[in-house]
Amino acid sequence: MQNNPILKLGLPKGSLQEAALAKMAKAGFNIQVSSRSYAPYVDDEHLLVRLIRAQEISRYVELGYLDCGLTGHDWIVENGSQVHEVGEFQFSKVSSQPARWVLAVPEYSSIHSPKDLEGKRIATEVVNITKRYLQQHGVKAEVEFSWGATEVKAHELVDAIVELTETGSSLRANNLRIVDTLLVSTPRLIANQTAWKDPWKRQKIETLALLLRGAIEAESKVGLKMNLQQKDLEALLRTLPALRNPTVSNLSLPGWVAVETIIDEKVVRELIPLLKAAGAEGIIEYPLNKVVY
Amino acid sequence: MQNNPILKLGLPKGSLQEAALAKMAKAGFNIQVSSRSYAPYVDDEHLLVRLIRAQEISRYVELGYLDCGLTGHDWIVENGSQVHEVGEFQFSKVSSQPARWVLAVPEYSSIHSPKDLEGKRIATEVVNITKRYLQQHGVKAEVEFSWGATEVKAHELVDAIVELTETGSSLRANNLRIVDTLLVSTPRLIANQTAWKDPWKRQKIETLALLLRGAIEAESKVGLKMNLQQKDLEALLRTLPALRNPTVSNLSLPGWVAVETIIDEKVVRELIPLLKAAGAEGIIEYPLNKVVY
Amino acid sequence: MQNNPILKLGLPKGSLQEAALAKMAKAGFNIQVSSRSYAPYVDDEHLLVRLIRAQEISRYVELGYLDCGLTGHDWIVENGSQVHEVGEFQFSKVSSQPARWVLAVPEYSSIHSPKDLEGKRIATEVVNITKRYLQQHGVKAEVEFSWGATEVKAHELVDAIVELTETGSSLRANNLRIVDTLLVSTPRLIANQTAWKDPWKRQKIETLALLLRGAIEAESKVGLKMNLQQKDLEALLRTLPALRNPTVSNLSLPGWVAVETIIDEKVVRELIPLLKAAGAEGIIEYPLNKVVY
Amino acid sequence: MQNNPILKLGLPKGSLQEAALAKMAKAGFNIQVSSRSYAPYVDDEHLLVRLIRAQEISRYVELGYLDCGLTGHDWIVENGSQVHEVGEFQFSKVSSQPARWVLAVPEYSSIHSPKDLEGKRIATEVVNITKRYLQQHGVKAEVEFSWGATEVKAHELVDAIVELTETGSSLRANNLRIVDTLLVSTPRLIANQTAWKDPWKRQKIETLALLLRGAIEAESKVGLKMNLQQKDLEALLRTLPALRNPTVSNLSLPGWVAVETIIDEKVVRELIPLLKAAGAEGIIEYPLNKVVY
Amino acid sequence: MQNNPILKLGLPKGSLQEAALAKMAKAGFNIQVSSRSYAPYVDDEHLLVRLIRAQEISRYVELGYLDCGLTGHDWIVENGSQVHEVGEFQFSKVSSQPARWVLAVPEYSSIHSPKDLEGKRIATEVVNITKRYLQQHGVKAEVEFSWGATEVKAHELVDAIVELTETGSSLRANNLRIVDTLLVSTPRLIANQTAWKDPWKRQKIETLALLLRGAIEAESKVGLKMNLQQKDLEALLRTLPALRNPTVSNLSLPGWVAVETIIDEKVVRELIPLLKAAGAEGIIEYPLNKVVY
Amino acid sequence: MQNNPILKLGLPKGSLQEAALAKMAKAGFNIQVSSRSYAPYVDDEHLLVRLIRAQEISRYVELGYLDCGLTGHDWIVENGSQVHEVGEFQFSKVSSQPARWVLAVPEYSSIHSPKDLEGKRIATEVVNITKRYLQQHGVKAEVEFSWGATEVKAHELVDAIVELTETGSSLRANNLRIVDTLLVSTPRLIANQTAWKDPWKRQKIETLALLLRGAIEAESKVGLKMNLQQKDLEALLRTLPALRNPTVSNLSLPGWVAVETIIDEKVVRELIPLLKAAGAEGIIEYPLNKVVY
Repeated sequence: MQNNPILKLGLPKGSLQEAALAKMAKAGFNIQVSSRSYAPYVDDEHLLVRLIRAQEISRYVELGYLDCGLTGHDWIVENGSQVHEVGEFQFSKVSSQPARWVLAVPEYSSIHSPKDLEGKRIATEVVNITKRYLQQHGVKAEVEFSWGATEVKAHELVDAIVELTETGSSLRANNLRIVDTLLVSTPRLIANQTAWKDPWKRQKIETLALLLRGAIEAESKVGLKMNLQQKDLEALLRTLPALRNPTVSNLSLPGWVAVETIIDEKVVRELIPLLKAAGAEGIIEYPLNKVVY
Repeated sequence: MQNNPILKLGLPKGSLQEAALAKMAKAGFNIQVSSRSYAPYVDDEHLLVRLIRAQEISRYVELGYLDCGLTGHDWIVENGSQVHEVGEFQFSKVSSQPARWVLAVPEYSSIHSPKDLEGKRIATEVVNITKRYLQQHGVKAEVEFSWGATEVKAHELVDAIVELTETGSSLRANNLRIVDTLLVSTPRLIANQTAWKDPWKRQKIETLALLLRGAIEAESKVGLKMNLQQKDLEALLRTLPALRNPTVSNLSLPGWVAVETIIDEKVVRELIPLLKAAGAEGIIEYPLNKVVY
Repeated sequence: MQNNPILKLGLPKGSLQEAALAKMAKAGFNIQVSSRSYAPYVDDEHLLVRLIRAQEISRYVELGYLDCGLTGHDWIVENGSQVHEVGEFQFSKVSSQPARWVLAVPEYSSIHSPKDLEGKRIATEVVNITKRYLQQHGVKAEVEFSWGATEVKAHELVDAIVELTETGSSLRANNLRIVDTLLVSTPRLIANQTAWKDPWKRQKIETLALLLRGAIEAESKVGLKMNLQQKDLEALLRTLPALRNPTVSNLSLPGWVAVETIIDEKVVRELIPLLKAAGAEGIIEYPLNKVVY
Repeated sequence: MQNNPILKLGLPKGSLQEAALAKMAKAGFNIQVSSRSYAPYVDDEHLLVRLIRAQEISRYVELGYLDCGLTGHDWIVENGSQVHEVGEFQFSKVSSQPARWVLAVPEYSSIHSPKDLEGKRIATEVVNITKRYLQQHGVKAEVEFSWGATEVKAHELVDAIVELTETGSSLRANNLRIVDTLLVSTPRLIANQTAWKDPWKRQKIETLALLLRGAIEAESKVGLKMNLQQKDLEALLRTLPALRNPTVSNLSLPGWVAVETIIDEKVVRELIPLLKAAGAEGIIEYPLNKVVY
Repeated sequence: MQNNPILKLGLPKGSLQEAALAKMAKAGFNIQVSSRSYAPYVDDEHLLVRLIRAQEISRYVELGYLDCGLTGHDWIVENGSQVHEVGEFQFSKVSSQPARWVLAVPEYSSIHSPKDLEGKRIATEVVNITKRYLQQHGVKAEVEFSWGATEVKAHELVDAIVELTETGSSLRANNLRIVDTLLVSTPRLIANQTAWKDPWKRQKIETLALLLRGAIEAESKVGLKMNLQQKDLEALLRTLPALRNPTVSNLSLPGWVAVETIIDEKVVRELIPLLKAAGAEGIIEYPLNKVVY
Repeated sequence: MQNNPILKLGLPKGSLQEAALAKMAKAGFNIQVSSRSYAPYVDDEHLLVRLIRAQEISRYVELGYLDCGLTGHDWIVENGSQVHEVGEFQFSKVSSQPARWVLAVPEYSSIHSPKDLEGKRIATEVVNITKRYLQQHGVKAEVEFSWGATEVKAHELVDAIVELTETGSSLRANNLRIVDTLLVSTPRLIANQTAWKDPWKRQKIETLALLLRGAIEAESKVGLKMNLQQKDLEALLRTLPALRNPTVSNLSLPGWVAVETIIDEKVVRELIPLLKAAGAEGIIEYPLNKVVY
């Protein structure tokens, strides 16, 4: 181990910044961004945080300017970066769908499959992903880099676009039709290949991943606790597989046990009536900060 | 049970909407209202939610367009709706007083009792409740429907008003005096008579009521946990009846027990000094999501 | 004890008001400030709250108009108030530094030590503290009362200022240099000498202090709970002194125990990997409202 | 004339309130609404303002509780009020379309003309207007009063609705189709029949109408001023009929005149190039507060 | 005149700051306050602006640290500053009443005149003004300095207060009664005695006063312009003294004149009907930036 | 001229959008951007507006997809677009400095001139401009495209950056030093070469330019009007060259003239005292919407 070891972490600046900082805080790392300094403050002297566009993080991780970073799978692919992928992390809660890069055209366009792109012009922010896609389909088309506001161009300036979407509502609002999906993207924690071989850095990165996962896990989980007669326990556990691996402890009152478990918040609403029916009393649900199995 | 059973639930649109959606979320049902659709999204495929004015919900529940609904006792009475009342639910926390429909007049009015209304003109949103009230007191007066801003009319346009109030501050600000209370109203969960006889629907409604009650209960409660020597336990429980039915478990350390209970948040501030005095150690208070006895 | 005993509590009006009311709420006392009344509402019939400038609270506590109050150490000193200090309370979380009254001059001033103030003019809100400081250093200088915006004066209207600062950033933004620190100040709960001798009032004040401390303590703490094989327990506790005094209870599953403890949130991020390595399973972290040892 | 004559004016409370008060201010009458009083302050001792729901203003003007009022044509018709209509006033600027009450049904409904309503159920806030419409078309249908959120009902609770719309976007967002227009409504200044016969009140109302009209007129107009050689004047005026009735004054410089006129702001962008071509110099455009022909 | 002459102007920091900067901007001096500098930027290289509490401005003008300043009459009196008063400037528009320092007591206090203050305790921010007032009435009472929130003290901590009020609503909300007015205060432009004798500075100050007055004047005035037949002019001017000193110019159309004048905005609403009646055509009202007679 | 001629105009989307739409509105073209459509509405049936990133407008104007566009000089150069430049338009008021692309390095970098860049790595959004600059100085260095947040990279990820700045404050806040300026950029109206040869389009573009210029001109100008004795006129005009080309008209009052002129708002504050001294009376200043010489 080095004398004063430091891990350099890249976080996405811009639209994902708030979500990334919130997850880091839940994992236990409080980061303060100041308008007066390029270097955010983090309450861990072994961690150094830099805010960089998601598009570029994998590039700087690959080059070793950063030891690791949180970025989207899409930009790792677009940049063709050679990095170690530590894990996948879903930032958004519950019902959110992952982001997709899709091929979209005006509703009344004659383009209905990748083959129809032959000889056309396509605007996109992910030029490499798009070119590879065309190649896979054996299609020749012109791909031009778009600085943004890409939806607007599909009607008059180009024939098709490759654009990011989650719910598709922005595309629909612009009267665009999705032809195909090129790539589904989720946030990833990536590491520089050399940093990953350094034992101290690797352990630090793995701890970070463990805590992030624990914090994200806790968002959709709750604690559930209840009292029960010992005699009803077996029947309860047999009929309710959702109560997987509960912690059962004896109460002072002879014949009674306390049952405690961690479950999906969404399951609770179905479980509680069943628990009551099975003889459970004093059922409480409480919030969690982290869950680590 | 039907193939794809659905329960239609009406929630109040407008001033009570936010509170109603918040309670539903705490009960475990996340509802998203979109400006692009009349149909709110709810993360339960067996539930269908409609937002309708509180004034009208009981009408549509009675007619069977909705299976059940959350609405005020006042509008059930005003509409004279024949529905099954599942239960009463207090939306607001702690110190809130229930809403009351009151008869109000200008401070210096000569009207001091219902009898003084003979031959007068009254403006109100609850015409039927007001007419019934007059009838009960054997008084004849003209009742006119008011679209709102009723307080303003009491000084110049009519002789008295029947208006909704909680703290009375809006009436005082308009220099109005309360003469009598016609009706105290709280939120109710109501069900269509036929739906209530359908076993699947009835169970679904009862589960909904159970979870709503659990979530509302949890708002004013907290969990309290402490360690104690076994020998002090009996004395503690005898002197502190607030610690009703605690969960007592043995600690590994011989002679020590852990005591855990759920109590009113307001009681904690008086209890903690007494617990310390009785020998409790490591007292912690933690928040709850739901409490079901 | 009196018939209807009342404790009069002064809380700081203005910049500290929000923080003070938030802490009181966490302690269990909900206070509502209305623009229509000088008397805030508090949900405790034995407590009477007044909002007064932090500068004046110690004066009115000393005179007995208030039984106790929350105010800064600085203003107790500035006013020279003879009051009983019940305890110190840090309002802000984690990384916050205490407020300091510092002697500051323009960056390029020739003043580098208190001695250099001889014959100069100093503007400050704390005239007495400043005069005492000068006296201690045997320096003669003119001290004038400043109504605020003191930083602006240091460049042209006076030679030096004595001003409150936390991070020093406001001073730096005005190109001022800190020469010396006169006083470090933290919030204190103080009591009138006579009130402190009244048994009922003293107990009420001590309870208030206990609850405030419990609420503040809970802000930087979390609950941590895990399951463990009995055989691994001793090794775990020996290697992890952070797990001071855990509550250990037997699980129904023979050979397993549940370990629960309260620790600093900041420690969790280092502890969790070690706990996993030591054989802990089902580790969860949960939030706390109050912690009383 | 009376000793201390007063005109009682009703203005619409709610969604139109802000626009109505803004127009009154431009007309020269500053009205302040206080949350502490039912009586708004107006800086004219001969004017008394009351804020009342637009739905009810015509009723109280008819009864004489108000001398005059600003309200929509729709509610005058719905209430069947016998009042004197002083004039029509368009509140919104430039591109706004007047409000319309339309018959709307779900997009895929089989209702395509009023005839198709036979035996159906219709929800609306304007029950009388709707009943009259059905009568005119010789159709029998049930009309029920809706307290609002009417769009939501059209899909499940009733067969059709009669609802207010300007751009139709709210209807489209709810997937509703417009079948027919029942009434186009614009704001009107109305007067009580008796008040209109009182010379002082009538003159006060007419002045109010004159100033309101002058203020509304000025919103879409600007002042345009330029210098021109006398010899070019005739040609300019002949070719540019938009310069209707300009004010022409002699400049000191022999042979030059100043031309000034008031025109629609929208015309300016076409006019300026033509004016320059016709020899105009020093063209300026300036804003107006009021325009009275 | 000096080589690079500079005028140092003090403006009030805090509650009056926004109004003061707005008036300066209307007068033609754009001032930008930065959080990064104690020295506001002003677009006049001969002007230097400092923001200082209104309470202190007269002190620093008297001492010569500032050449001139905008401050309240009250603080000039309270400080007993020897300065040259250049003029009075009303900051607020139309209906605003000047600020008054009043003696106030609880509604049910037995104090009804200054004489009743004998032996009492009074809290105030203006200690000197209050002492002088007591002296004038031959009354002995204790006056203590209040840091603010003075209204709250009147009920329990002192017997009376001397506090600033405009409308009295804050006093009424605290159930306080006004006993007497000690001082009416309006904003003043003041100058240092020596600076006033410097010809360049005096002229600069007088220009500043002229422009400020012109800008303030313009706020309640408008321009009014109309066309008229020459023959009707005399009658118009005779019957309408409000049209004081109009500018009359000949139109090209023989027999017609243009009449233009500057008048109070409040007069317009009465004037326009009369002008129409007197034969005026094409009446327009336009806004003004400055008016200098 | 075509049957239904249309001019396609590109406006910058994003940070300049608001300013561009505001200027267009002042010029007389009201544009409404809807979140539901890619095509903004404009109240001119011969104009079609598209919002596109400033970086790309010149590309699409060159290709003829747009007839003309408002964009920055920088992006025209970066793209090397062959377009007709109609004119330069300053968007921001008064004190604003034009945007500059500068070469910046950390304060303590050893890079002090372009020569020092040899062999270094530079991040920038304007890759072509930067490469050309290096070529001009005979320097070889690596230039990499930056997606934004470029300042952050200068300390650790690259050796220098080329970044856009106006006041330099963002660079200073990041402790960066400006080495050189590569390009000064202002907004330009550009036209497609072919469109510029079409008479109708060219005239439409020129009118647009004329109106934009008139609106921008009016922002820093005001109208000034005063009365004067004929005998004082010559002296006034001789001594006050700022009153260039005033409009002088005869008043009815013999011997008096009205003088009216358009001048820079900033000159007014110096002019008014001189005008008064020269005998001017009734001086008024009024705002302008457009000024076209």
